[in-house]
Amino acid sequence: MPDSRPRLEEVLQVFERHRTVRQYADARIPEQDIARILQAGRRAPTDATGFMYAVIRVTDTELRVRLAALCGDQQHIADASDFFVVCLDLHRQARLLEALGERQAPLGAWAFLFGVVDAVLVAENMAVAAEALGYGTGFIGGVHYDTPGVARALRLPAGVFPIVGLTMGVIAREPARRKRLPLESTFHENAYAPTTDAVAAACFEAMVSQGGSFDWKRTLVRYFAAGGIMEQREPTITAALREQGVLPR
Amino acid sequence: MPDSRPRLEEVLQVFERHRTVRQYADARIPEQDIARILQAGRRAPTDATGFMYAVIRVTDTELRVRLAALCGDQQHIADASDFFVVCLDLHRQARLLEALGERQAPLGAWAFLFGVVDAVLVAENMAVAAEALGYGTGFIGGVHYDTPGVARALRLPAGVFPIVGLTMGVIAREPARRKRLPLESTFHENAYAPTTDAVAAACFEAMVSQGGSFDWKRTLVRYFAAGGIMEQREPTITAALREQGVLPR
Repeated sequence: MPDSRPRLEEVLQVFERHRTVRQYADARIPEQDIARILQAGRRAPTDATGFMYAVIRVTDTELRVRLAALCGDQQHIADASDFFVVCLDLHRQARLLEALGERQAPLGAWAFLFGVVDAVLVAENMAVAAEALGYGTGFIGGVHYDTPGVARALRLPAGVFPIVGLTMGVIAREPARRKRLPLESTFHENAYAPTTDAVAAACFEAMVSQGGSFDWKRTLVRYFAAGGIMEQREPTITAALREQGVLPR
Repeated sequence: MPDSRPRLEEVLQVFERHRTVRQYADARIPEQDIARILQAGRRAPTDATGFMYAVIRVTDTELRVRLAALCGDQQHIADASDFFVVCLDLHRQARLLEALGERQAPLGAWAFLFGVVDAVLVAENMAVAAEALGYGTGFIGGVHYDTPGVARALRLPAGVFPIVGLTMGVIAREPARRKRLPLESTFHENAYAPTTDAVAAACFEAMVSQGGSFDWKRTLVRYFAAGGIMEQREPTITAALREQGVLPR
């Protein structure tokens, strides 16, 4: 007789109603809900029980305003009830290994890879928990607008590197639900199926905004084409990875 | 009047009852539940609407057995009802930019970072959805036991790199709930607080197994100390990142 857990089907509604919120009401999330959100993050899986993450909650108003600027003038970082920076953390582990009389393995691609995995598992659990409790959330990739500046502002030691920001709060205005790529372009069976012209066309078709101002093709080019935002961020991200000792200099 | 979403408090139970499952019953997850699990993954947030992920579902029995071996002889990969490899995917995006007459920015740390973030957001949504439906799940970091071998087995083109495996199925035996580090060691306010001797002691204390066979100190050393499993994986991961064109050669 297999063990079974009751089905909690409500959960699927959280994913269905998810959208990224950038307009928050001037209202606070009660501390008891914050505690439940942190606990959800804490329960996330972790590779090899390594707990390679740290969450910094930013409650100081001046620091919040400074981070909003460092992330490329994102006002909602200052307006949200709460703002967290979720980091990969190999510092704690190094200290724990020291306490055991051992030396941590040299950091490198493994630390970057598994650290990001652990950090994002925690971050997404926190976001899902916050949304389940009726709040809005928004991930902030803009922490990489000036990664070394963010690392300094939060006094991150060697081995700690910011991955994503996460705002949460009471929703002032519910944005339109953003579209998703067709399933056949993102899910594959037994082998990766390279993107054909037909699939590319289906992707563009699926992302057409109905009456909204969002132009996905323009966003793609602006962020990901040669000379775009990601290419501009590359030296910043690389410099911070080296400064924080995650990748060798 | 702020917009509000109803509270779906059940969701928090999913995080509380979470544990990594490695013993699956010989039973299948119905396809309609799989469809709902994929849909939960599809609804995950994505940085800059870049959708830098791909999910490969492995249904072929021989391929499943081969992957179980490639991941370091993990029998549960073959036994589970379902097995997915969640990848970072910059191939699709390159093709879409080509279709727009643009060239993708050269890959590098930005692609590795944001690709892992997107992939793990999808993977964790899938895991939470599966657990909400009463199934067990297990993340498999062992895809990096032989990353290039896994990439070849799944015919991943340039720009696609495996991040984590994910098993799911009907639970044969519910494992003990694994402990977590104390909140004060993983959550910080306004600045990172370096790990003191007292916090290190509290971490070891919190992770002591009650009557179980799990020895966290030993696991830490085995995986993360100099000469351990992560250091052994480093050349494998780096080689695959270069072969897949994610980092420059």
